[in-house]
Amino acid sequence: MTYSMVELIGQKRDGGTLSADQLAWIIAEYTGHRIADYQMSAFLMAILFNGFDTTELAAWTNAMLHSGEVLDLSAVAKPKVDKHSTGGVGDKVSIPLAPIVAACGVAVPMISGRSLAHTGGTLDKLESIPGFTTDIAPWAFPEQLNDIGVVMAGQTETLVPADRHLYALRDATGTVPSLPLIASSIMSKKVAEDIDALLLDVKVGSGAFMKNRQDAAMLAQTMVEIGRSSDTPVTVVLTDMSQPLGREVGNANEIIESISVLRGEGPEDVTELTLTFASEMITLAGIADSETARGLAEQAVSSGAALDVLARLIERQGGDPRVIENTAQLPSARNEYVITAPRDGWITRCDALDIGFASVRLGAGRSRKKDVIDPSVGFSIEAKVGDSVSVGDPLARIAWNDQSALDSALSVLGNAWRIADEPTPKPDLIMGVIT
Amino acid sequence: MTYSMVELIGQKRDGGTLSADQLAWIIAEYTGHRIADYQMSAFLMAILFNGFDTTELAAWTNAMLHSGEVLDLSAVAKPKVDKHSTGGVGDKVSIPLAPIVAACGVAVPMISGRSLAHTGGTLDKLESIPGFTTDIAPWAFPEQLNDIGVVMAGQTETLVPADRHLYALRDATGTVPSLPLIASSIMSKKVAEDIDALLLDVKVGSGAFMKNRQDAAMLAQTMVEIGRSSDTPVTVVLTDMSQPLGREVGNANEIIESISVLRGEGPEDVTELTLTFASEMITLAGIADSETARGLAEQAVSSGAALDVLARLIERQGGDPRVIENTAQLPSARNEYVITAPRDGWITRCDALDIGFASVRLGAGRSRKKDVIDPSVGFSIEAKVGDSVSVGDPLARIAWNDQSALDSALSVLGNAWRIADEPTPKPDLIMGVIT
Repeated sequence: MTYSMVELIGQKRDGGTLSADQLAWIIAEYTGHRIADYQMSAFLMAILFNGFDTTELAAWTNAMLHSGEVLDLSAVAKPKVDKHSTGGVGDKVSIPLAPIVAACGVAVPMISGRSLAHTGGTLDKLESIPGFTTDIAPWAFPEQLNDIGVVMAGQTETLVPADRHLYALRDATGTVPSLPLIASSIMSKKVAEDIDALLLDVKVGSGAFMKNRQDAAMLAQTMVEIGRSSDTPVTVVLTDMSQPLGREVGNANEIIESISVLRGEGPEDVTELTLTFASEMITLAGIADSETARGLAEQAVSSGAALDVLARLIERQGGDPRVIENTAQLPSARNEYVITAPRDGWITRCDALDIGFASVRLGAGRSRKKDVIDPSVGFSIEAKVGDSVSVGDPLARIAWNDQSALDSALSVLGNAWRIADEPTPKPDLIMGVIT
Repeated sequence: MTYSMVELIGQKRDGGTLSADQLAWIIAEYTGHRIADYQMSAFLMAILFNGFDTTELAAWTNAMLHSGEVLDLSAVAKPKVDKHSTGGVGDKVSIPLAPIVAACGVAVPMISGRSLAHTGGTLDKLESIPGFTTDIAPWAFPEQLNDIGVVMAGQTETLVPADRHLYALRDATGTVPSLPLIASSIMSKKVAEDIDALLLDVKVGSGAFMKNRQDAAMLAQTMVEIGRSSDTPVTVVLTDMSQPLGREVGNANEIIESISVLRGEGPEDVTELTLTFASEMITLAGIADSETARGLAEQAVSSGAALDVLARLIERQGGDPRVIENTAQLPSARNEYVITAPRDGWITRCDALDIGFASVRLGAGRSRKKDVIDPSVGFSIEAKVGDSVSVGDPLARIAWNDQSALDSALSVLGNAWRIADEPTPKPDLIMGVIT
């Protein structure tokens, strides 16, 4: 069938429902450059206002999925489960998590993204390991998954090209914050990994794209629905992103913190989230029930099996695994700047968004796509919400190389911390689980 | 000031209000091709959903107005009033109307449009007079207005270029049916004519862009508001477009019907609308109060003064004024096809939209911009709502040249007329006046 794009825009604008055939036509024509960007952006804005019903959302996601190649992991016998996070500050969980669940018999074909706006990117963090490449061809996935149980790769040109085109257009046309567009973008890429199930970490709070619990729960619900329609069970965990996760925000320093989690020496919050997610993924994989899964994950850490998987992963993807024993091989910054507490009291705010933007200015993230990341700079946060401090105590240590970048970072940190006379409880790390 | 278009799109998307400075920036940058079509179309769709408040609408219209040249009619001492119609089928009112009010001392600098979708265009009708040109340069307006009192011209490249660009984009992106965009498009072009006041005919019904009275009244209200903010009083008359206006639908045949109105021999509905509008325009011009204005208009017809203005207009714009006495000079079709009543009864439907689309297929209008119009083809409607017919009576006579065009026209006329056992009253021609 062939359609008139202007008529289809009109239908969505007027609150109509489009057929699977119509939506597939739009994605195919747009990917083939036969629909103009100016028509697609008007259509995306109409979706932003009028949404998609469940059937449309499934059809749209499916059409995106089939806009390019799809991984074929039929040669991998192990259950295949991936985890995706909607993005946060200091969120390095994927790095210790994937080796833990791989050590427990789950195959993790993880395709990650890069630093975006104020949030970090798993690929950027991994690439701070000298020699580590995330450029893994689709055909190389099955063998590596059979050997090690984990691949940590960047997006390829051939998987879900529609999403790359659409995302660039959405970014320029104010059509990013649409629930069905966000959900279909994530799910099409994850289903293209040929996985059996997905764990989704929807972050909530100042440093997340979802600022409140209600929006996050709606996204979670939408994701679970798409998962159902594409035969890919999705478990969603809503987690706090009002303050950075863990102590380290940057790239090389987040690798060091990830290693410490796998040694059983990580900060409490990152460790807890990692083990909770591992437990959910092992359960989704059907390897254990939810009571015993947590024990398996903890054992993978205490036995050193998970750390061993990480070493093999680094080696397989071109890095030197001795970096685990000798983190001095990682890039480090030349200078340190310490932010100190101006008064005694309790920390009531340690803002993820402020620290995220400051870390971008420092050079740890990108404000434009072409920016080059400095893997050695970043924050070590010493005081988080609920902690008590005395005047002069360090709130954070900033590893820096460039004076103007440091000055720029400091200029946006004026309200990052707040110190009050009364204590505030620590925020709940895990805000809910939706399946 | 310089802004980020993606941020401004976001503001409008989120229901915010944009400043006059921001809106002027958008229009200037878009007209200068420094904002991409894909950003503008997303912005237009956001306007379609979230609207403009009164201040934004005034600022947007004003920015469009100043995107190009503006007529300077300061050398014309007479009051300057124009009339605009939102478009209909068989709507030739401008052609007898302008000469009538010009004969009464009003200057009418009318810039009209062409046939669009199922509606006819004043320019196309006028151009069926051999030699008649509507290509009148802005500098030629004052002298012609001082001499004859009327100019009937096409849009120029230099007046309101923003509207031409925006309209083409809206047409391709489903963003035509937005009240503020429709209103600002009309008003920017009319205010650019340097007029003192405007009479607006908002058509309502199947053959109009506004299908119901409520939408039409909202457009009317919006237009009156913009008029107020741009110091150009606007009177809006809501008129019926459920069936074609008058008997003739086409081009040359509508010129003949227009001449008959100026001879006092026109169909009742076209005559009534023409005189009502003339009376409103004479009142808006301050030449007479509303009680005596109608008399002046009738006198301009009965004295032959209005017909004389039409003759001078035709001559001034390159045509042969003897066409008025000898309409055989106008192009005429080679064949006639008569649609007859299949049964006795009363006409309860004579649908403007069906007949409008049929006339396009016949060659009297355009389905694409590049289509060439055949000025000689068209409909003479013999039976309209409220009329009684006997089986075999003509419902309409079709003047045609091309067999396949005739067949195509006939194929969409199946439901154009409906004949019932009981009579239906004629629809009210004038549905309301809003000032």
